Amino acid sequence: VLPLALVCSLDARHRFEPERLSATCPGDGAPLLVEYPHRSLDRAAVARGPWSMWRYREMLPVDAAEEPVTLGEGSTPLIPAPQLAAELRLDVPLYVKDESQNPTGSFKSRGMSVAVTRARRLGAAALVAPSAGNAGGALAAYGARAQLPVIVFLPRDTPAILIEECETYGARVELVDGLIDDAGKRAAEFAAATGAFNMATLREPYRIEGKKTMGYELIEELGGPPAAIVYPTGGGTGLIGMWKAFDELEACGWIGRRRPKMIAVQAEGCAPIVRAFEENAPSARCWDDAFTAAWGLRVPSALGDRLMLRAIRESGGTAIAVSEADLLSGMAAMRTREGIDASEEGGAAVAALRVALDRGMHPDGPIVLFNTGSALKYAPRRAAATGAAAFA
Amino acid sequence: VLPLALVCSLDARHRFEPERLSATCPGDGAPLLVEYPHRSLDRAAVARGPWSMWRYREMLPVDAAEEPVTLGEGSTPLIPAPQLAAELRLDVPLYVKDESQNPTGSFKSRGMSVAVTRARRLGAAALVAPSAGNAGGALAAYGARAQLPVIVFLPRDTPAILIEECETYGARVELVDGLIDDAGKRAAEFAAATGAFNMATLREPYRIEGKKTMGYELIEELGGPPAAIVYPTGGGTGLIGMWKAFDELEACGWIGRRRPKMIAVQAEGCAPIVRAFEENAPSARCWDDAFTAAWGLRVPSALGDRLMLRAIRESGGTAIAVSEADLLSGMAAMRTREGIDASEEGGAAVAALRVALDRGMHPDGPIVLFNTGSALKYAPRRAAATGAAAFA
Repeated sequence: VLPLALVCSLDARHRFEPERLSATCPGDGAPLLVEYPHRSLDRAAVARGPWSMWRYREMLPVDAAEEPVTLGEGSTPLIPAPQLAAELRLDVPLYVKDESQNPTGSFKSRGMSVAVTRARRLGAAALVAPSAGNAGGALAAYGARAQLPVIVFLPRDTPAILIEECETYGARVELVDGLIDDAGKRAAEFAAATGAFNMATLREPYRIEGKKTMGYELIEELGGPPAAIVYPTGGGTGLIGMWKAFDELEACGWIGRRRPKMIAVQAEGCAPIVRAFEENAPSARCWDDAFTAAWGLRVPSALGDRLMLRAIRESGGTAIAVSEADLLSGMAAMRTREGIDASEEGGAAVAALRVALDRGMHPDGPIVLFNTGSALKYAPRRAAATGAAAFA
Repeated sequence: VLPLALVCSLDARHRFEPERLSATCPGDGAPLLVEYPHRSLDRAAVARGPWSMWRYREMLPVDAAEEPVTLGEGSTPLIPAPQLAAELRLDVPLYVKDESQNPTGSFKSRGMSVAVTRARRLGAAALVAPSAGNAGGALAAYGARAQLPVIVFLPRDTPAILIEECETYGARVELVDGLIDDAGKRAAEFAAATGAFNMATLREPYRIEGKKTMGYELIEELGGPPAAIVYPTGGGTGLIGMWKAFDELEACGWIGRRRPKMIAVQAEGCAPIVRAFEENAPSARCWDDAFTAAWGLRVPSALGDRLMLRAIRESGGTAIAVSEADLLSGMAAMRTREGIDASEEGGAAVAALRVALDRGMHPDGPIVLFNTGSALKYAPRRAAATGAAAFA
């Protein structure tokens, strides 16, 4: 259904008309969140039609007649992981939500489907975003589907496979010295100079609307909230999106007040949210010299830091940093024990669950790990990192 | 439901008991096909439960209580392709069945899910297969899920990304001089020497049972048969499997006698089925010096040649070979016009449809192109082929 308003995530008194292209709150620069007209709906109205993330379209920003820009994203399988559970000595069910099975190989597809749908409707002439790789490929694909020009800013050390992915969808790629935040500055400058619409994480209000469908799906698949969600956290919109989904589902009367513990996972080489959580700070400082093989976690500062920290705390969850060795062995465990196409980020989730259990977490219900993307896009990085030949 | 019998595809009088590990017909070496006990079922019994390829389990070889070896394969989206249709001046709907969204990035997941389920049940101690890449990754993943040892034989020029995919699922990889048929010989020798079960295409009867679900899904998604199916054909089990599905669906009373025209697509550098079709031969000779960038089509001789040729002819379809330039421009068209993660094989389908229309085909209903796998696994090949650097 069409949004009622865009509401500032820092100060809810700042409300904005949703039917024009919008960035962050003009007052304080905080992300804007979407509010829908109905706060109460029965379950049959919330989830309708075939198994697809668009079955929740009553809580997504499209009107009844609108065709979303879709490639079949979402509705990913929730895969039981009994062998991993046994290895971790868990006595509750363990699942992996496998986001590698999205159209562009990662959960980024969900957000871009909704955000490009909105950008097209609201008249964007061109789309620009910074990316560590997965978001760029997703924007390139959905931009092509909407027949809108796409420009992606990538760190210069991005492997050729990801550059080629963007370019073969017809996108223009600009390489930038530095990391994702440097690419973000260049993308913002480009948007300001050319009028292209900036689709960077939380710089516009709709990618999070797509990602929240992970929360809707989990509730529907499990018949209620799991005990804990272990989520690899870079920009953090997946986690924030699911948190918003649970609030919406409570307002709709589908679930009660109980929430899953939200366990944010980062790498020891880039853990701004973990540091802020442990310091009991409301926001996170930028992380210097970020390094991790889990490139999706190589986000030194995230616009959604406050929202992430709030969700983690309100849920009774925690934030855990894992070592490079542990995330790699977690990845190997998810692949060899369960046959799931785990990337480094999925491996970090396994490692973090192990830490949480070692610290005494006693889950009283199912646990869900997220594998946020396919390992295929990382293979050249691994080869480069280990000095192995790229070709046999 | 459990199979009633395994029936020789060359001589239906050769029937075998299905509850033991079986290869090809001991009499004539032809592939065995699965027959089910019921020839008549109502639609509600054939398609039951959530949107997943296992909703057709009444026509898949599992008993009621059995948990299949599954990673959420199948139930891929059927994506409308209006922009490609306009470019081709089509006045009927055009769709792409996007098999890149499978757990291991290609349609091979479907076949391996069913075949590994059966192999586990029937007591296989280890699984072996030759592969050009996609089948090996799929066997490695499903073997890991079933906790069975996997050995994959790959051509020595297989890119590192595909070798790594197999190895990171815990499989053992053996590199072989030559192409897929040479790898196939080595796999067969290994199976004979060690007792490992040979999972090569059509050497066992169940991979085709998984692949036939593409046919079931198309019928359910479109509400009936399309006018034509354009399918990139290497080993050909996808095409043969769908043909079997249509017969089963007719026997069940779900569809009538009308069949889609089956259009088999090959590359000019490896077109044994096209040559046999044009020569009006019942079987295909081996293709010398096979070459194409669409590695899934680099199959010089296929055990399923007779079955493929029969299906193409009975359907009133055809077989078309496309040039390297045309399959690459078809791939670019599917990517840039529709945002679909088209591989070279998907591109070959676009190119073949263009040829079929140029030759005067007048479809009287929807057309379905298959994108059999993700382009990601091919990126290093492309880089190698063009001499571009693998890393930025």
